[in-house]
Amino acid sequence: MTSFRVGLLGHGTVGGALHELLDARAGAIEATTGRRPEVSGVLTRSHGDFQEILAASDLIVELIGGLEPARDYLLRALRAGRHVVTANKQVLAEHGDELFAAAREAGVELRFEAAVGGVVPVIRVIHETLAAAYIERVHGIVNGTTNFILTEMARTGESYADALRQAQELGFAEADPTDDVTGKDAAAKMAIVARLAFGARLTVDQVDYEGIERITPDDIEYAKELGLSLKLIGTAERVDGGVSVRVHPAFLYGAHPLAAVNGSFNAVTVESTAITEITLSGPGAGGSQTASAVLGDVISAMIPPAVPPGPAAPVEPVTDVESAFYLHLEVADRPGVLAQIAEILGLQGVSVKSVVQKGLGADARLTIVVHPARESRFLAAVGLIGRLDFLRVPPRWIRVIEEVFE
Amino acid sequence: MTSFRVGLLGHGTVGGALHELLDARAGAIEATTGRRPEVSGVLTRSHGDFQEILAASDLIVELIGGLEPARDYLLRALRAGRHVVTANKQVLAEHGDELFAAAREAGVELRFEAAVGGVVPVIRVIHETLAAAYIERVHGIVNGTTNFILTEMARTGESYADALRQAQELGFAEADPTDDVTGKDAAAKMAIVARLAFGARLTVDQVDYEGIERITPDDIEYAKELGLSLKLIGTAERVDGGVSVRVHPAFLYGAHPLAAVNGSFNAVTVESTAITEITLSGPGAGGSQTASAVLGDVISAMIPPAVPPGPAAPVEPVTDVESAFYLHLEVADRPGVLAQIAEILGLQGVSVKSVVQKGLGADARLTIVVHPARESRFLAAVGLIGRLDFLRVPPRWIRVIEEVFE
Repeated sequence: MTSFRVGLLGHGTVGGALHELLDARAGAIEATTGRRPEVSGVLTRSHGDFQEILAASDLIVELIGGLEPARDYLLRALRAGRHVVTANKQVLAEHGDELFAAAREAGVELRFEAAVGGVVPVIRVIHETLAAAYIERVHGIVNGTTNFILTEMARTGESYADALRQAQELGFAEADPTDDVTGKDAAAKMAIVARLAFGARLTVDQVDYEGIERITPDDIEYAKELGLSLKLIGTAERVDGGVSVRVHPAFLYGAHPLAAVNGSFNAVTVESTAITEITLSGPGAGGSQTASAVLGDVISAMIPPAVPPGPAAPVEPVTDVESAFYLHLEVADRPGVLAQIAEILGLQGVSVKSVVQKGLGADARLTIVVHPARESRFLAAVGLIGRLDFLRVPPRWIRVIEEVFE
Repeated sequence: MTSFRVGLLGHGTVGGALHELLDARAGAIEATTGRRPEVSGVLTRSHGDFQEILAASDLIVELIGGLEPARDYLLRALRAGRHVVTANKQVLAEHGDELFAAAREAGVELRFEAAVGGVVPVIRVIHETLAAAYIERVHGIVNGTTNFILTEMARTGESYADALRQAQELGFAEADPTDDVTGKDAAAKMAIVARLAFGARLTVDQVDYEGIERITPDDIEYAKELGLSLKLIGTAERVDGGVSVRVHPAFLYGAHPLAAVNGSFNAVTVESTAITEITLSGPGAGGSQTASAVLGDVISAMIPPAVPPGPAAPVEPVTDVESAFYLHLEVADRPGVLAQIAEILGLQGVSVKSVVQKGLGADARLTIVVHPARESRFLAAVGLIGRLDFLRVPPRWIRVIEEVFE
């Protein structure tokens, strides 16, 4: 029996769960890989020595999180010829180039399934789809906290602030939820997805992101009437020879495979002409789920691939993509209002798909859905509409993602 | 450059699409595997010689379908030390033991992703989940034809016969739809799934299956009012140390991940304590999608695993599992009817979850949903209920699958 020595950096909820899982599944893993995994050392804030653990390990699992000292440990492990598995999206999104280069030079594996989709094997499926199909687009709900909040808002009609408070009480949101609700967490994950799906060398600064803080129960309510549901969607897609990666709230039609993904679940849709689309969904990260994703990576690293991945190419990020939009206007109810708005949209090449008018007189509201148009042109039209004197408050808008099959 | 020679048996829709894909993706595959795939020969009904193609190939792709000569070719290829990829669920479900044994003895790979879930990587994800987690249950919608028919019935209220006719006109059902609508096709696929997920050596005869022919628009309509949607569900699960594999129409609550899978899509949910559940969905088999799944297998076979899989163990199939049920009764509307029915159910240990009464007098109908109970006891109760004199027609029942999280 040959053993495979795993050094653990970090021993919190995930680290503890992983340690248990490794012991429980050691026999099954040996049957699959021919080697029996054992924990060769554990580094915590107060115990253990990194250099000693490194010397005693074939593979290092990093579960510390954050940028430093995680980056330093990861680089030292890779340069010492150790395989590395990490659940740390931040360090990958910020220092991916450096880390992947170190792995290539040392001829070792750097795996990171748990950094993206919780228990959903996003990285694995994208990676395996890649050789067989040319991936055109990935849409994802990759943050469980925001999906929980939006689901609660839709279900109960409560405000963003109330739904956030509830998510915090139930343990679905951190005390400081900033990274989640601003879309920053999802942006880091989508940067990692884009690197993998398109070989795009992309830092998190190149991902446009927008959070869910400004979403009102009104938006969700009106949209329901139009058959739409609201999600925080990450998109990575090929556009005009470049790549666009972005995160923003978006409405989905009922038939879209992501429309039914509720609560703290994560899901990803991979689109390609050859495969049409594949959707994967499952619970977002909990301790045991993340540990299970990490263990999957450990097992994969024990079975090395035939050819190590090549270096990623720098890409030109495309920012001005096409989107359909929902536009909410509070207007004075007088003749000619709709005509004027339609004209401004039309002059920018934006065509209207549906209009619903609600309320009368001082309470009149228009909710408009437009067909896909260049975002710059839609926003130019909205800028002009915002200056019209019959508008009572500034316009609000949210992107709409069309069904894959219409 | 080393080449990897692929022999094609069958050159219909899938074979032709695969041939094109292999050419188009040859460069990408070489970058991933270090070898460039090329088609070394094609066998059709009228052209080509199997023995010559075999001699010139590293891997054989079997797309002929049916039992013979497919089984003969597969065995000869495996015994000659060639890797084999097949999309043929029938031959795997009938002759799996013989074929897997031949692959093990020769130390070659036998891959079959396209045989189960269309483009959805069911086999791959189950296989990779296995080492990291103990799989407890797999639920699947693994037949696109029946899912299309049930979706149409729910959407339009039309009869089974009309929906089937429409599916045939649109190319979603064969001229002879027997294997699909009786559940036989799904049963063969679930036998393959069970073999993989539980190492269960199981023939298709050990899978209980029931089709969708007796489903009425009424059933779907009443169930909608209860918040249920109807699917043909394949189940493979561990029960009391054994394994149960079965296929039958079942109602799902709206929150179940398979409830929103519509049209000709396939989907599978894999449940395990460690991962909770993962759901995969995508279009059922079309020519290019199946070809893409086959190509994925070809690529995987080019990167062999560390340890070949061990032999499967025979299992004791468990037949009398627990299920929740929907029960539809047309009764004379008179006092004491419901009490008598509830008493019969109660004596068998079956407890009622909800009752809806519809219509009055000669048109009275009861739709009852019961909590999970041993199927034998529920069926015994239904047998007794069927003999009550106030029943106007025989009882109808359909299984109900509870939500994973309640």
